[in-house]
Amino acid sequence: MTRIDNFKSIIDKYEVVFFDAFGVLKNYGGLLPSIERTFSYLAEQGKEYYIVTNDASRSPVQLAESYTTKGLTAITPDRIISSGMLTKEYLDLKVNDGIVAYLGTPDSAHYIDSSGLHTLPISEVNESNIDRVNALVFLDDEGFDWGRDLNKSVNLMRKRTIPAIVANTDHAYPLTKHDVSIAIGGLASMIEKIVGKEFIRFGKPDSQMFMFAYDLLRERRPISKRDIVMVGDTLQTDILGGNKFGLDTVLVLSGNTQAKDAENRITATGIVPTYICDSAVVEAGGLGF
Amino acid sequence: MTRIDNFKSIIDKYEVVFFDAFGVLKNYGGLLPSIERTFSYLAEQGKEYYIVTNDASRSPVQLAESYTTKGLTAITPDRIISSGMLTKEYLDLKVNDGIVAYLGTPDSAHYIDSSGLHTLPISEVNESNIDRVNALVFLDDEGFDWGRDLNKSVNLMRKRTIPAIVANTDHAYPLTKHDVSIAIGGLASMIEKIVGKEFIRFGKPDSQMFMFAYDLLRERRPISKRDIVMVGDTLQTDILGGNKFGLDTVLVLSGNTQAKDAENRITATGIVPTYICDSAVVEAGGLGF
Amino acid sequence: MTRIDNFKSIIDKYEVVFFDAFGVLKNYGGLLPSIERTFSYLAEQGKEYYIVTNDASRSPVQLAESYTTKGLTAITPDRIISSGMLTKEYLDLKVNDGIVAYLGTPDSAHYIDSSGLHTLPISEVNESNIDRVNALVFLDDEGFDWGRDLNKSVNLMRKRTIPAIVANTDHAYPLTKHDVSIAIGGLASMIEKIVGKEFIRFGKPDSQMFMFAYDLLRERRPISKRDIVMVGDTLQTDILGGNKFGLDTVLVLSGNTQAKDAENRITATGIVPTYICDSAVVEAGGLGF
Amino acid sequence: MTRIDNFKSIIDKYEVVFFDAFGVLKNYGGLLPSIERTFSYLAEQGKEYYIVTNDASRSPVQLAESYTTKGLTAITPDRIISSGMLTKEYLDLKVNDGIVAYLGTPDSAHYIDSSGLHTLPISEVNESNIDRVNALVFLDDEGFDWGRDLNKSVNLMRKRTIPAIVANTDHAYPLTKHDVSIAIGGLASMIEKIVGKEFIRFGKPDSQMFMFAYDLLRERRPISKRDIVMVGDTLQTDILGGNKFGLDTVLVLSGNTQAKDAENRITATGIVPTYICDSAVVEAGGLGF
Repeated sequence: MTRIDNFKSIIDKYEVVFFDAFGVLKNYGGLLPSIERTFSYLAEQGKEYYIVTNDASRSPVQLAESYTTKGLTAITPDRIISSGMLTKEYLDLKVNDGIVAYLGTPDSAHYIDSSGLHTLPISEVNESNIDRVNALVFLDDEGFDWGRDLNKSVNLMRKRTIPAIVANTDHAYPLTKHDVSIAIGGLASMIEKIVGKEFIRFGKPDSQMFMFAYDLLRERRPISKRDIVMVGDTLQTDILGGNKFGLDTVLVLSGNTQAKDAENRITATGIVPTYICDSAVVEAGGLGF
Repeated sequence: MTRIDNFKSIIDKYEVVFFDAFGVLKNYGGLLPSIERTFSYLAEQGKEYYIVTNDASRSPVQLAESYTTKGLTAITPDRIISSGMLTKEYLDLKVNDGIVAYLGTPDSAHYIDSSGLHTLPISEVNESNIDRVNALVFLDDEGFDWGRDLNKSVNLMRKRTIPAIVANTDHAYPLTKHDVSIAIGGLASMIEKIVGKEFIRFGKPDSQMFMFAYDLLRERRPISKRDIVMVGDTLQTDILGGNKFGLDTVLVLSGNTQAKDAENRITATGIVPTYICDSAVVEAGGLGF
Repeated sequence: MTRIDNFKSIIDKYEVVFFDAFGVLKNYGGLLPSIERTFSYLAEQGKEYYIVTNDASRSPVQLAESYTTKGLTAITPDRIISSGMLTKEYLDLKVNDGIVAYLGTPDSAHYIDSSGLHTLPISEVNESNIDRVNALVFLDDEGFDWGRDLNKSVNLMRKRTIPAIVANTDHAYPLTKHDVSIAIGGLASMIEKIVGKEFIRFGKPDSQMFMFAYDLLRERRPISKRDIVMVGDTLQTDILGGNKFGLDTVLVLSGNTQAKDAENRITATGIVPTYICDSAVVEAGGLGF
Repeated sequence: MTRIDNFKSIIDKYEVVFFDAFGVLKNYGGLLPSIERTFSYLAEQGKEYYIVTNDASRSPVQLAESYTTKGLTAITPDRIISSGMLTKEYLDLKVNDGIVAYLGTPDSAHYIDSSGLHTLPISEVNESNIDRVNALVFLDDEGFDWGRDLNKSVNLMRKRTIPAIVANTDHAYPLTKHDVSIAIGGLASMIEKIVGKEFIRFGKPDSQMFMFAYDLLRERRPISKRDIVMVGDTLQTDILGGNKFGLDTVLVLSGNTQAKDAENRITATGIVPTYICDSAVVEAGGLGF
């Protein structure tokens, strides 16, 4: 574990950088100040990058727009790997027909829709269509009535022997500086425990997220895992997942893990990043202008 | 494990009977047909009985009324031991002043209120009063907005180092013949996992429920645990709790555990009742009239 | 939560003191220096006390001897409540005949033996007697071959539908200043998970430990829970259990919880003692001689 | 979910077959009778196959020998993907120098050895070399003294902030027709819980196992996940893992899942194979001779 002062020196060591999104590139207040410098430097140096994010609330196109409208144009849809994309791949491969019921917003559903299946908000599942529901997907904590629709989800999973897919494994996410919100992953775990069945989860630390990005890279050219580094703010997802996949990892202190706790948490969890760095922002002098 | 044909023969063996409520005396359709015969026989034989129930939604007075209005007058408030009563005792002993925030209906709050503390729905906790909140109590799955108030509960428990008391440990309960509802115990477990703190739970199978009833009995006369039998429909709460407390136990097949599954479930869980009986209804001929 | 300088002031507030043993009265090095002063003061003031300990390795007589031989004569067998005693009560009430197989030393078995059942080391269970084994008891991490006998325990519990009783719920215990040892509670939890059955656990934080001591007290005179204080070094067992039972609690910093971590751990776990005190030793001046 | 009579019809549908080993190709009694017919048919039809096994006790060469000596020559080392190989890849990529301590036999260690690191049985870790131990690997349940070495493992993980790798995630495995044995995955989980750190696990249902096999396939030619089928006897590992990776799956009834339980277990777990078949043996007439 090495303390690094300027994120630039990490970029110099690798061919490809995987970034987590929330807590690394942005937080509840918007983009991290000067994060665009990092992407300028990556472009200048001819390095590749991907955003690897536990987010199934929107499509890559919509996610990319959220950066572009804030002034960061480097993050194009093809650079984004989301747990929602793995969910879509699963539905394409494993659910051939019928209805996919979902918890989430219409935006999240629109994205899954493109796999050709008929999507239906859980609120609209009823006696007349329940026999055609062939999967339940947990996409987002918004867009439905928790009291009514969590109960409907429990009863759907008790009545039908179908896969339940959790497209975002996080249990909570930061809402403001002081408050968090329960995430869809937390709600899904409660329902899984109540119905006693095994749900399918996509999202870091699971390897499938990293493999998806790795496969995209290899379609274009041979690349070794030694040439890739994963940058994240959360030990249990970004760093554990990156380590397990065989990548070097950087813990940044701009999100979930604060400078004062970093060492204690590393010791307590046993999850050790290759490097620690204040943030993923390349310092001003770092561009060599 | 002995199969018993008529519940009457169980009453004959003991001095005191503890009954679970839901699935034993009543279900979603109302009282079990002819269950009043059981209480007539208990009275005739001079046997004592208590209802030992994981229910914190109403006070014993209100719970007793729900039987009386259906025609079963034998279940008076002093015969009811609820997990809500243990919650009240805890607050009396351990929370001396300030506000107790709660999730539940006004009925459930009214009951806790009598311990002299100021109760407040979680929806009304805000910046101006949060510092005076000295406990959070999970009483009922109704009476609040899940989306808003579960998130408020998470943030309250992150900000304040106070006890959270789960007054009903069940994760789900039957709503109709085909549907269940998530119970407050399931919601509380999700929040406990997210905030990472240890919540305090009252309710079967925990011994404190049985001890409360046992203490009431001993206030009047000496009684051995050998003279008490616990009757319930759920292996993991009624039977496990009764066994662990040292009581003989009867599994009835009128609720959660169906006749066709009973043996498999006993083998799978290793929770063995002393007796199995179709229901707690004393058969017609059993009264000896 | 109040910081207390001299343990004497705690004794002054209550009628009865419950002490945890390891980390409070003794540690791997022997008795805490000057701990006898505490018991002199208790005697002088006419206060009662009990040792409430998750220890099933020896009988109260043997446990008391371990204090007497070190010079602390105040801890007589009748003052000791161990999780082993609850195990014995369970066997007395619930297992009527046959063989009780055990993991532990002959000393631990001797103690259970007195309940009239035939005890047998798990190593001696075989085809010819397995059908008469009516309970499996986890007493101590010593006295058996782990590789052979843990596997025998798994297979016994798969073949027989009998209760498994865990007489010590701790997962590890301190062996020296730097090393811990896996405790029988940790081994039992592994086996429980593998066989998928519900084991019965005795030991703090479970209420049954406190109830046992409380019942002994009440046999002699009426006593309120408000007059009892629980003193321990471990938040998850002593303090959580004491709080839940409705007692005031004292966290001492002479064992598992170190002064530098105490506040962080209390905040992280949400388990709040009534008082914090360096140790249970009454300071020299405290005796008023 | 479709019931298939002859495994031959499954082979006909796909280009590649992944087989689990234990319970599919062999069991405690040796090879499944006539399983060689399956491999003859695969060869005849020009289909590819891999053995995907949660086994880190031996190298692929040694595993292949165990089939060859029993007369099944089709299973060559290059056809075997074991969780041990993922462990080796992890050590190659992530642990650069120092000592790798292990629990297992010398055979299992020999295999890991080839990654250039110095391997050491946990029994030989001591004060003089502990600071150079940079990983702990759980390989096999044999080859060490459980009582001594499980405790040594706990203390190593408490003292050093290093990765612990669990090379076989199974908690138990069948030893004879009637008995199981605790597997190294069960022992590792106990230790993980005691030390409170996150261990790294390789083995089904984790995707990394399937990805490893899939990558080997793709090195030779393009292949879609739709052309691969996973055959296994265990819902929670083979079928769940195969499904999640996006493969079609076959549950065979020759191992962990028995014909009489299959439907109940599928309903209870919600893990649904694409097909169910008695065994992976191609029926005699199936070879078209």
